[in-house]
Amino acid sequence: MIAYFKIDKKLENDSFLIVNLKLCQVRLINNYDYTWLILVPQQNNIVEITDLPLKEYNLLCSEIYLVSQIMQKLFKPDKLNIATIGNIVRQLHVHIIARFKNDKLFPKPVWGCEFTPYDSAVFSHKISIISDAIKNLN
Amino acid sequence: MIAYFKIDKKLENDSFLIVNLKLCQVRLINNYDYTWLILVPQQNNIVEITDLPLKEYNLLCSEIYLVSQIMQKLFKPDKLNIATIGNIVRQLHVHIIARFKNDKLFPKPVWGCEFTPYDSAVFSHKISIISDAIKNLN
Repeated sequence: MIAYFKIDKKLENDSFLIVNLKLCQVRLINNYDYTWLILVPQQNNIVEITDLPLKEYNLLCSEIYLVSQIMQKLFKPDKLNIATIGNIVRQLHVHIIARFKNDKLFPKPVWGCEFTPYDSAVFSHKISIISDAIKNLN
Repeated sequence: MIAYFKIDKKLENDSFLIVNLKLCQVRLINNYDYTWLILVPQQNNIVEITDLPLKEYNLLCSEIYLVSQIMQKLFKPDKLNIATIGNIVRQLHVHIIARFKNDKLFPKPVWGCEFTPYDSAVFSHKISIISDAIKNLN
């Protein structure tokens, strides 16, 4: 969105860019145990949702809705977990995670868990199917 | 919002109604360790945000924004934690929690923690200051 947008180093290292929406980067967290996306608004110095002007907040909400629909369509989770926490990485990012009753931690939340890195071919494949679905719906 | 709206028993038992907004009940969780609100859209059979028609989803988003502003104004948290999880109670509810660097669990999330019930006078007082702030801003 803006040329000089700077993503937090930890978010960058933990995830891979799938696609840029109008406001947010949509990124896949490199943890094979869950299909776990983050939406990162491409604006600097944003920590809380209330740091976003209302227009950008509404855009964030519509991108959350869109990506949630895609997660449901592609992966048919038992439950979506959607959150902005930011206790460790303060740059605003919204988690959208597909949870299944038989996943490693259900019904517990996944934040703070150990990551199981993807095999790179599986990672690329998942990135491309999510990217295609977003491009088709957007 | 609708006469026959039925709130989940566990949500009802764990919290107290502060105020009804256009879409959501705003409720205070009976856990003295955190100022922890939930917003519960007053519609039956809603589990995911995508179960809400877009008009109601937009209303939910604006109520989240409003309540977040009030939490910041009243309590000046180090971080707001905002989430819809629903792995245990499926009825859609959005947590808005004021977190402090010196609270019991920071930086860990609070979901699944033990509750410390409020003293009833403190509980009533907190409900009334939040209720007043919402009425003033809304």
